[in-house]
Amino acid sequence: MGSDSDWPVMKKALEVLRKFGVGFEARVASAHRTTEQALELAKKAHEVGYSVIIAGAGAAAHLPGVLAAVTPLPVIGVPINGTALQGVDALYAMVQMPSGIPVATVAIDGAKNAALLAVQILSVKENKLRQQLIEYKRKMASEVSEKDKKIQQLVAEL
Amino acid sequence: MGSDSDWPVMKKALEVLRKFGVGFEARVASAHRTTEQALELAKKAHEVGYSVIIAGAGAAAHLPGVLAAVTPLPVIGVPINGTALQGVDALYAMVQMPSGIPVATVAIDGAKNAALLAVQILSVKENKLRQQLIEYKRKMASEVSEKDKKIQQLVAEL
Amino acid sequence: MGSDSDWPVMKKALEVLRKFGVGFEARVASAHRTTEQALELAKKAHEVGYSVIIAGAGAAAHLPGVLAAVTPLPVIGVPINGTALQGVDALYAMVQMPSGIPVATVAIDGAKNAALLAVQILSVKENKLRQQLIEYKRKMASEVSEKDKKIQQLVAEL
Amino acid sequence: MGSDSDWPVMKKALEVLRKFGVGFEARVASAHRTTEQALELAKKAHEVGYSVIIAGAGAAAHLPGVLAAVTPLPVIGVPINGTALQGVDALYAMVQMPSGIPVATVAIDGAKNAALLAVQILSVKENKLRQQLIEYKRKMASEVSEKDKKIQQLVAEL
Amino acid sequence: MGSDSDWPVMKKALEVLRKFGVGFEARVASAHRTTEQALELAKKAHEVGYSVIIAGAGAAAHLPGVLAAVTPLPVIGVPINGTALQGVDALYAMVQMPSGIPVATVAIDGAKNAALLAVQILSVKENKLRQQLIEYKRKMASEVSEKDKKIQQLVAEL
Amino acid sequence: MGSDSDWPVMKKALEVLRKFGVGFEARVASAHRTTEQALELAKKAHEVGYSVIIAGAGAAAHLPGVLAAVTPLPVIGVPINGTALQGVDALYAMVQMPSGIPVATVAIDGAKNAALLAVQILSVKENKLRQQLIEYKRKMASEVSEKDKKIQQLVAEL
Amino acid sequence: MGSDSDWPVMKKALEVLRKFGVGFEARVASAHRTTEQALELAKKAHEVGYSVIIAGAGAAAHLPGVLAAVTPLPVIGVPINGTALQGVDALYAMVQMPSGIPVATVAIDGAKNAALLAVQILSVKENKLRQQLIEYKRKMASEVSEKDKKIQQLVAEL
Amino acid sequence: MGSDSDWPVMKKALEVLRKFGVGFEARVASAHRTTEQALELAKKAHEVGYSVIIAGAGAAAHLPGVLAAVTPLPVIGVPINGTALQGVDALYAMVQMPSGIPVATVAIDGAKNAALLAVQILSVKENKLRQQLIEYKRKMASEVSEKDKKIQQLVAEL
Repeated sequence: MGSDSDWPVMKKALEVLRKFGVGFEARVASAHRTTEQALELAKKAHEVGYSVIIAGAGAAAHLPGVLAAVTPLPVIGVPINGTALQGVDALYAMVQMPSGIPVATVAIDGAKNAALLAVQILSVKENKLRQQLIEYKRKMASEVSEKDKKIQQLVAEL
Repeated sequence: MGSDSDWPVMKKALEVLRKFGVGFEARVASAHRTTEQALELAKKAHEVGYSVIIAGAGAAAHLPGVLAAVTPLPVIGVPINGTALQGVDALYAMVQMPSGIPVATVAIDGAKNAALLAVQILSVKENKLRQQLIEYKRKMASEVSEKDKKIQQLVAEL
Repeated sequence: MGSDSDWPVMKKALEVLRKFGVGFEARVASAHRTTEQALELAKKAHEVGYSVIIAGAGAAAHLPGVLAAVTPLPVIGVPINGTALQGVDALYAMVQMPSGIPVATVAIDGAKNAALLAVQILSVKENKLRQQLIEYKRKMASEVSEKDKKIQQLVAEL
Repeated sequence: MGSDSDWPVMKKALEVLRKFGVGFEARVASAHRTTEQALELAKKAHEVGYSVIIAGAGAAAHLPGVLAAVTPLPVIGVPINGTALQGVDALYAMVQMPSGIPVATVAIDGAKNAALLAVQILSVKENKLRQQLIEYKRKMASEVSEKDKKIQQLVAEL
Repeated sequence: MGSDSDWPVMKKALEVLRKFGVGFEARVASAHRTTEQALELAKKAHEVGYSVIIAGAGAAAHLPGVLAAVTPLPVIGVPINGTALQGVDALYAMVQMPSGIPVATVAIDGAKNAALLAVQILSVKENKLRQQLIEYKRKMASEVSEKDKKIQQLVAEL
Repeated sequence: MGSDSDWPVMKKALEVLRKFGVGFEARVASAHRTTEQALELAKKAHEVGYSVIIAGAGAAAHLPGVLAAVTPLPVIGVPINGTALQGVDALYAMVQMPSGIPVATVAIDGAKNAALLAVQILSVKENKLRQQLIEYKRKMASEVSEKDKKIQQLVAEL
Repeated sequence: MGSDSDWPVMKKALEVLRKFGVGFEARVASAHRTTEQALELAKKAHEVGYSVIIAGAGAAAHLPGVLAAVTPLPVIGVPINGTALQGVDALYAMVQMPSGIPVATVAIDGAKNAALLAVQILSVKENKLRQQLIEYKRKMASEVSEKDKKIQQLVAEL
Repeated sequence: MGSDSDWPVMKKALEVLRKFGVGFEARVASAHRTTEQALELAKKAHEVGYSVIIAGAGAAAHLPGVLAAVTPLPVIGVPINGTALQGVDALYAMVQMPSGIPVATVAIDGAKNAALLAVQILSVKENKLRQQLIEYKRKMASEVSEKDKKIQQLVAEL
């Protein structure tokens, strides 16, 4: 993440990864304040065994794009709502990456989905994760059923 | 892709996949006109051996989100510029997916990057693709050097 | 509605329907978490006697479009303000439906108007509802007169 | 429609209505240039037997809202792309109608969908139209299959 | 004004008019709920001696445009910030009026400026108002000088 | 106008003024390139007998605001579509004027309406102009009737 | 600054200048309320020894552009978030300056960066400031390291 | 510049620099394709005697921000209109830089103003440039006078 102020958003990604039993390292690394350390991290990431990079940043959010520039790994970008432009600046600065260097962008503040996307990517190799994802979908569906029942209740009380 | 009118944009993805030697199937499947066939394709995709889905669509572009709803595979969305809103409608309809069902969104009309992202995802499993990606980056860098020389020429002629 | 979190907005629709004596069923059904159940509901809706579907959803709000894909009934979409983009994402994801599958879109968080539109649609068949709508307009007009008087008071006190 | 310049967009609505065998009257009536005639038309519409009003307009597009103000009929609004703001002005001026007076808004330049929505509304009363709508969906689906085949061809030639 | 909820914004206009000694009448009149009364008011306005109409409204703010349609008087529109779109809907629905029927639009929630513009318009006829406007500008300038001094103080304390 | 490139838009204003027999002077004066001359023109305008100023400008369109700063006359602003932002920059730079210095803003490229607004303002003093405005509205209405007939023809030929 | 209400934003610029030991004068000067005094300040600025002007303003923020019109000094603009448009109006009114009169625009409410940019500009002449800037970057980098450690802690506690 | 496709826009900067007799080097350097070379160029720039960096880029335009991260020199950013978002993506990705690393942003495609801003910055040290800038402003003013005369001609011919 670009700053420790991104923690309340980005920790949701870590919680999902933990739930799926996926190992991770969480670092603050700034595209602008510690450019070279950030590049160093990204350049070595695939060599030291990482498979996916998730980068969250707000404002003119260059972090995911800059990391993507120097790694062959898929980079997932989380635009963070942290300015008067309410995340549209971060969204455009991530999703509109030029030809050759994609950033897999998720919703503004969508850290949870970034982690799920990372798990989906890892599941290309690890079948166990795919089974967990299928199970996760099943759980989401049953939660919707619960919510549906709750609404029936609320309608009855209307 | 949601319609054959998306072909001029989406074929750039296929060209990249071919260059990397990645097998693919290209289908027209509409989230709204052939919903159930589209869902059927997506639901079986991982069973018949696919690892990634790329979905390009314009306007209220629901296709990638609807496919993502029923597959454990990573889904890459390409928002297509095809209406008066110039792709912003498609971008928002893809990138702002609700919690639980991510769509890895790339730039408006960014089909080439969608394919590169797919290759990056596949490279998690196939080391050969990773080497090709590293080589691809090297080529891009040397193209920039060529462009740099060309500009020196233009400056000299200014 | 796409989630029980849409209830505070969507219940205003139910209150209007109740006031007009129009029967309804309220369900939580997610385009992404319970896609097939949602489709099933929509596909049977006209067979089990429903005449209109109102679908409220936020973010990349695919629900009304996905229901519209499989039903011959008119579908009314309520974009819900639930993200950093303040409902513009939901609005674009509903109103910009591609040719062939319309969604009758109302204002962001406009659940009350969605219900009134449903009543107007039903009034095509049921003359009693048309009379009620005419009466409803009359009441609105007299409320404006009340407000006008209140403002005269406030001006006098200025 | 608000002006004869809207004809190229709005005639697509008439073509759909004709295809479905639905009777219609097409009028130019301006919310601003012939306000009272427009109101007169709208006020009598349900009395002379009309069931739905479709209103297309560009810029600060008040026509559908103004007609909706004086009729108990459902009013469908087509925002037309005719200014530097590319239809966003017309879209906001239609879809954001205040509580009490809905306008069923379709996509920018979405006249065809406006007509389909009108047919869906009429089908609440006329079962024959519902059958035609179901048939129409079937045809759209088979057109997608045709497009899918065409794309297979194009892929083969790539 | 379109509703009594616009009062907190619109009363600022009345305060300015009062300060300049300009007579006014303040009415709630809705373009959609009491269309004909609103038109009636506007049509007679110049006959009963009014010279300018100020109309404030939010959402799909048709009121100033509809009044402008039936009066030869200049109409000033105040877009009111009252929806998720934060006044942009009201702004576009006023300022983008089609050829032939201008609305003199001021800033979102800019009721005070609307009144000043009205005074400027009246000053075309009444020289006394022009002198008051010149005096008003002088006062604004001296208020800026006061603020400048206050800032010097704050800088000194920094 | 801010530049001679604004002429194609702004000349429409002059044509309207000429049609109404209103005298005018047309000047190029830049808020940024000839600031003091522009201010000089504006400061003297009411003294040399002008009653209204119309200012058209594109991009960060400061001209009308800067003129309004130094004149007690009403200033009408025409935002001109001349940049990648398609006139939204000019619109915001005019309509969002701070408290105390209104600019009566019309539509993007709305020079014709600016002139009509000027005529409406002048008609506060000159009754003859009011009669002409009423006549102008009548003509617009009959043009709509002509267009209505033309559309009947086109429908018949459909 | 355009008003004393800009103080909470703009004082951050002064704090940075003070930290770098750069002399400054802070003035309230309005492009619209005290146009000529503002112009006078700007015109003399380079003669009385100033090297850079920083101008912060909200709404239709003309201040930096108007100052830039009459000074050969670089002018830095700070768009201030002070209206319903959340600073986008001020941003467009500054950054979109026409050819010939640049305004060096920083982020919405970005007063701190405006001061840093001023220091960078001054460092073109004063080598000591350049050394301070290099030191400042070093400090920022070490702060990121601190934040990185803090996040490691938070991850451990997750 | 980020690519040779930016040449048609960016060469306008070089023409201005040449006119002012300011030395320059023009390079293609990509934040994403040749990140490290770009950083190397920026890091050495002040050591090899450069005083200002102008960086033009389109899409998710990270180039100026990334260069600014590693240089104590002022960096001027030119957002280039090269995608469906018409330069708004590039604008937001430059102007919204986070605290600590300013980018002096000019208008979309505003390369000419970027060069003028560079000259203004250099003039802090070189008095000769300041004199040239004052002369440049004088010429602009007289060009406006020429345009004013031309418009008088056009009005006479109207």
